[in-house]
Amino acid sequence: MSAEKPADIAIIVRSDRPESVYPAFILATTASAMGMRVEMFFTFWGLKAIVKGGADEIEKGFYEELRKRGMEPKGIPRLQDLISIARNSENFKIYACSTTIEAMGISNDSIIEGCPIVGAASFLARHGRGGTKILIF
Amino acid sequence: MSAEKPADIAIIVRSDRPESVYPAFILATTASAMGMRVEMFFTFWGLKAIVKGGADEIEKGFYEELRKRGMEPKGIPRLQDLISIARNSENFKIYACSTTIEAMGISNDSIIEGCPIVGAASFLARHGRGGTKILIF
Amino acid sequence: MSAEKPADIAIIVRSDRPESVYPAFILATTASAMGMRVEMFFTFWGLKAIVKGGADEIEKGFYEELRKRGMEPKGIPRLQDLISIARNSENFKIYACSTTIEAMGISNDSIIEGCPIVGAASFLARHGRGGTKILIF
Repeated sequence: MSAEKPADIAIIVRSDRPESVYPAFILATTASAMGMRVEMFFTFWGLKAIVKGGADEIEKGFYEELRKRGMEPKGIPRLQDLISIARNSENFKIYACSTTIEAMGISNDSIIEGCPIVGAASFLARHGRGGTKILIF
Repeated sequence: MSAEKPADIAIIVRSDRPESVYPAFILATTASAMGMRVEMFFTFWGLKAIVKGGADEIEKGFYEELRKRGMEPKGIPRLQDLISIARNSENFKIYACSTTIEAMGISNDSIIEGCPIVGAASFLARHGRGGTKILIF
Repeated sequence: MSAEKPADIAIIVRSDRPESVYPAFILATTASAMGMRVEMFFTFWGLKAIVKGGADEIEKGFYEELRKRGMEPKGIPRLQDLISIARNSENFKIYACSTTIEAMGISNDSIIEGCPIVGAASFLARHGRGGTKILIF
């Protein structure tokens, strides 16, 4: 960790609401495509986005809410695709919050592959000081 | 864009909940009054705040919620007034998110005047690096 | 104020939802334990966390929501304890938002001791410019 370049943007996702998960991934994947270093840290209810099966549930809820608001989803990127783009991008890292996993009794196996499990101290050691922008979704 | 001074604060509003829209505008207009350069970017449900008629709906919902919590609104600035202050301030810009407008089938005409429609890449090109503070509401 | 060192992290809590209050306090107390200077500013519904009796209500609501989601709380730090840690930490300050207190008709006495009441301008004067990271929960 110490030898790595710091991230440009570090995003904390702590809600499973669509207005947290979608804008976070759209901003993150866009930033990554523009050459920025991005890290995402999933905590609290937000962890659901990287639990197996969770993204589809979030997407379903989003489409229901859209229709309840009288809108018809049109050309919205699939959440699964956004997550795949993120996972396959260079200079992109996804972390799961260890405290949430313990406190909510989530098994480590239920997290999608390739997401190291770390705590708040690890996040802050990397991003608390210096130039990284921390965004809370 | 390239010749402009960077913003001090760039605010993303992605929810139409009162605890997103009101604090965002109060912080933004206060910062602007103190001489800071401010940009606001409305995306996802937050776009409602700059759709014609949207601010009044948000305000109505806020007052209902206040009363449900046993509080009586008192001396709260009108949301319309906060938006007017923002629009009439120098060094203040309001943007609407192009992706949301397409995905939710919102017509460009329904956005209040003077709010250019741009995408996440444009936002990140201006604020992703450098000293601008990005705040997510 | 002018002679003080600037904070490393300034956190605005504007919601009383558990996914706002808990992650904010966990991040803040962890940062403080790591030697960072932390300030928290409670506004809008978030003020409830520092109103006497409010933390217990938030905790009760959180446990109910956990069970409704089919999870059993396990080893979760007590919110009261997190708040006590924050209040007893050096280089840690908690502020209550004056605008919210007036607008929602909250009496100054109902705020827990040791939390000065200030406005958005005071917050921005300290953190709007310079290197402090502003996080919105």
